[in-house]
Amino acid sequence: MSDFHVYDTTLRDGAQQEGLNLSVADKLAIAAYLDELGVGYIEGGWPGANPKDTEFFRQARTALDLRNAKLAAFGSTRRAGAVAADDPQVRALLDAQTDVVTLVAKSHSRHVTEALRTTPEENLAMIQDTVSFLVGEGRSVFLDAEHFFDGYRADAAYALEVVRTAAAAGAEVIALCDTNGGMLPPQVTDVVGEVIAGTQARLGIHCHNDTGCAVANSLAAVEAGASHVQGTINGYGERTGNADLVTVVSNLQLKQGREVVEPERLRQALHLSHAISEVTNVVPYSRQPYVGASAFAHKAGLHASALKVDPDLYQHTDPSLVGNSMRTLVSDMAGRASIELKGKELGYDLTGQPELLGRVVARVKELEQQGWTFDAADASFELLLREEVTGDKLDYFDAESWRIITESGDRSPSLSEATVKLRAAGKRVVATGEGNGPVNALDHALREALTDAYPELATFELIDFRVRILDAAHGTDATTRVLIETSDGKDSWQTLGVAPNIVHASWTALVDSFSYGLLKQGVLPRT
Amino acid sequence: MSDFHVYDTTLRDGAQQEGLNLSVADKLAIAAYLDELGVGYIEGGWPGANPKDTEFFRQARTALDLRNAKLAAFGSTRRAGAVAADDPQVRALLDAQTDVVTLVAKSHSRHVTEALRTTPEENLAMIQDTVSFLVGEGRSVFLDAEHFFDGYRADAAYALEVVRTAAAAGAEVIALCDTNGGMLPPQVTDVVGEVIAGTQARLGIHCHNDTGCAVANSLAAVEAGASHVQGTINGYGERTGNADLVTVVSNLQLKQGREVVEPERLRQALHLSHAISEVTNVVPYSRQPYVGASAFAHKAGLHASALKVDPDLYQHTDPSLVGNSMRTLVSDMAGRASIELKGKELGYDLTGQPELLGRVVARVKELEQQGWTFDAADASFELLLREEVTGDKLDYFDAESWRIITESGDRSPSLSEATVKLRAAGKRVVATGEGNGPVNALDHALREALTDAYPELATFELIDFRVRILDAAHGTDATTRVLIETSDGKDSWQTLGVAPNIVHASWTALVDSFSYGLLKQGVLPRT
Repeated sequence: MSDFHVYDTTLRDGAQQEGLNLSVADKLAIAAYLDELGVGYIEGGWPGANPKDTEFFRQARTALDLRNAKLAAFGSTRRAGAVAADDPQVRALLDAQTDVVTLVAKSHSRHVTEALRTTPEENLAMIQDTVSFLVGEGRSVFLDAEHFFDGYRADAAYALEVVRTAAAAGAEVIALCDTNGGMLPPQVTDVVGEVIAGTQARLGIHCHNDTGCAVANSLAAVEAGASHVQGTINGYGERTGNADLVTVVSNLQLKQGREVVEPERLRQALHLSHAISEVTNVVPYSRQPYVGASAFAHKAGLHASALKVDPDLYQHTDPSLVGNSMRTLVSDMAGRASIELKGKELGYDLTGQPELLGRVVARVKELEQQGWTFDAADASFELLLREEVTGDKLDYFDAESWRIITESGDRSPSLSEATVKLRAAGKRVVATGEGNGPVNALDHALREALTDAYPELATFELIDFRVRILDAAHGTDATTRVLIETSDGKDSWQTLGVAPNIVHASWTALVDSFSYGLLKQGVLPRT
Repeated sequence: MSDFHVYDTTLRDGAQQEGLNLSVADKLAIAAYLDELGVGYIEGGWPGANPKDTEFFRQARTALDLRNAKLAAFGSTRRAGAVAADDPQVRALLDAQTDVVTLVAKSHSRHVTEALRTTPEENLAMIQDTVSFLVGEGRSVFLDAEHFFDGYRADAAYALEVVRTAAAAGAEVIALCDTNGGMLPPQVTDVVGEVIAGTQARLGIHCHNDTGCAVANSLAAVEAGASHVQGTINGYGERTGNADLVTVVSNLQLKQGREVVEPERLRQALHLSHAISEVTNVVPYSRQPYVGASAFAHKAGLHASALKVDPDLYQHTDPSLVGNSMRTLVSDMAGRASIELKGKELGYDLTGQPELLGRVVARVKELEQQGWTFDAADASFELLLREEVTGDKLDYFDAESWRIITESGDRSPSLSEATVKLRAAGKRVVATGEGNGPVNALDHALREALTDAYPELATFELIDFRVRILDAAHGTDATTRVLIETSDGKDSWQTLGVAPNIVHASWTALVDSFSYGLLKQGVLPRT
């Protein structure tokens, strides 16, 4: 199936996602990653309709060196009553100078009359004229048949006529779009089968996830004979998103044995999915199939002991095929087996050391009793483990005291001010930091106090901060768990603090976060 | 299809999700919400294996008043070589005193020998013995056939024998589990059809989302004849999660016309999905089908104009059926209709007062923009509504300033001290309170300052306190939302505060909580 099309529309339909806004530079960066993943086509945007997209295609000609993918410019059929060759929007598609032009066309007769406000006949003429004009100009033309499934249900004869007209005019692929996303797999199977039988056209599929079935609908269409599948990286898109190409491609390749991208490229899936999320600034979804941080993470103690026997019994596929790996989560449901596995993952071999393992398990259990949950804080767990293995606690500084004052006049903005007193690298330091909250102020003060002794922590940045009140039945007397995520620009790590006082819990998590970050850079305590 | 089972396992399998940790109080709160949604069965946990779950079932007997759902206790078949009646784990299932017991059993012959380390024959005996013992004790027994689909592929004859044995012993439902989550819909269709043909047993389905097909797989099983579907709210669960019951039920009901919950209950889906996410403290996924904040949000300019002509052309279903509403991305969730409805609920008739309604909607929209969510804070909303209706803001006191000092020596317990200055009942008061955290100290100080003017608030007690960091990408610079629940011994109410500073947000929520409590007792401001 070497001619199968993997067609990415992250840069056009994916960019419709709420809160997502891509610059030209972002789009170029994403296109390069998509090419690395091995997709066949990259839809770059709508030149003419959107100045940013026009600019993208202009810059792409020199800035992008695509190895696998071809660029596609997206646009619509000519205006009603016009001539394709004279339509400025159609000319803009030519000016984008791409190998492929993808035209969106109405295929639902009610949309033709009510939204496009023209006749069904004129809509067919618009398709015929625009496709054949662009083919005549040497372009490969794909047609996105908008609202196809709803249209087919309402008026099958007209929907089929749209497909026939486009194919006869020279469109290489007609992609059937479930624009509103309301389909379920059996409907997709039926419609794709009937359209192939009724038109002999080459079909593609374009799904949205409004019923939670975008992936399954895409696979159903392929099973029924479609040989072109559209989607977006990480399922970005309007409303509930488009079909996630990472999941679709992984399923086609690893579950159904269709090699649609080179296996070596699929091994980059996790890396590329996360790299693209850095560009879009959308936090990766940890439960994403195949490449999510949790996708191969095991918590249940029941499984952990058996996982040691044979990981294949508890994994639906080999995670390394998509660049992921199995993780064991340390939790109250886990016993020695999962802690041993976790140690191994972190590079500490605990086999044959039952006494050491027992000590670690006992400490974890005791802390979990108090409300710690290491499953979300690998870095805190590694610090604990390292301490038990080496018998040496990493004290990067010696804290004397800290104090935070938060005050506010009525309705005036509140300010927090923190003062930290500590000894580091042989010197006593007193430092003060301000912030718009107590933890923010404490972070600033601690950073200020340590910066002379540890200039390395200048790159650290707090990127997430979560608070959970445990045992909430006691109201503000409850215990507080604070989870912090810190980044050094390359990697990120999670640390934890638990205490009755939220500020104290934050202090613990901050100190661990700094310690872990320094340890990872090979910096040992300077005393 | 009135006998169709909607079976929720949020409290057991959902709790396996990375980072999710539920207290007994959390579980009771979630169970009450699930009952409101109209699920038929709520799996509460594994009594005996987990002390927290034992305690849940104990408390549930008095604390839960279920109208629709039955509770199910989850556990495993007896140990190899033992007798069910003498197995402590099986006894713990009886002690949970639920109508239903759901037993997990191996159905994959390799798992029997390699993980369970017994013989295939003994595994069948364990199923027969445990099911018939529990049936004899008056329980409805459901069987979760673990790793069924992988097992059926490896050794169909044995997998079928497991189903037949369980059914013959009296199990009412045998739920086929795709434990590793690797299936695609066509496989599920085939296997479910073959098992029904080969056993005539009543089948259920339990799916995980590792291929992104948990919802489609669940629907495929129902289409093939399963009449019991398991899942979790919001798709919580280990790895990529379980089938999202919200999506599965919405699809069954709105797409396939099977009434599996009362339509009026489905209209609560958004509210209940979000209320449960407040308990789990897992940020709601905005792209979640049906109930996600973005699920009916339209950004594309192409659509926005046509949306006005006929929303049905651009929506796959009527969002109000799940309690959601259409948004174009400049506006937000709060519509006039829902605010009018909410007002009615609270005893404020807003019909025929378009100007007043408009003012309330505008204020709610503005506050929601800043991160307020009135969904979980009826008391704060009622204060706002009362203010607009009466034109009179309830100021029980006039705050001058407040200040909180939190300090700690190294490793010594942290203490917070709050000082509040205010005027109430004609007097200026300066009061100080201590606490083990800043909010606790502030609560004590404010109470101390107000007690002379309002002795009525002596009965108020803070019973819950929740913190969510919004816009977490900014780390500790993010906005904080604090939700407080207060009780006067008879009733409880929720109030909200949003501010960059967590202490300020808590102050707002505390002040509203005192105001609302006093108002409910008929106490007006004393000046």
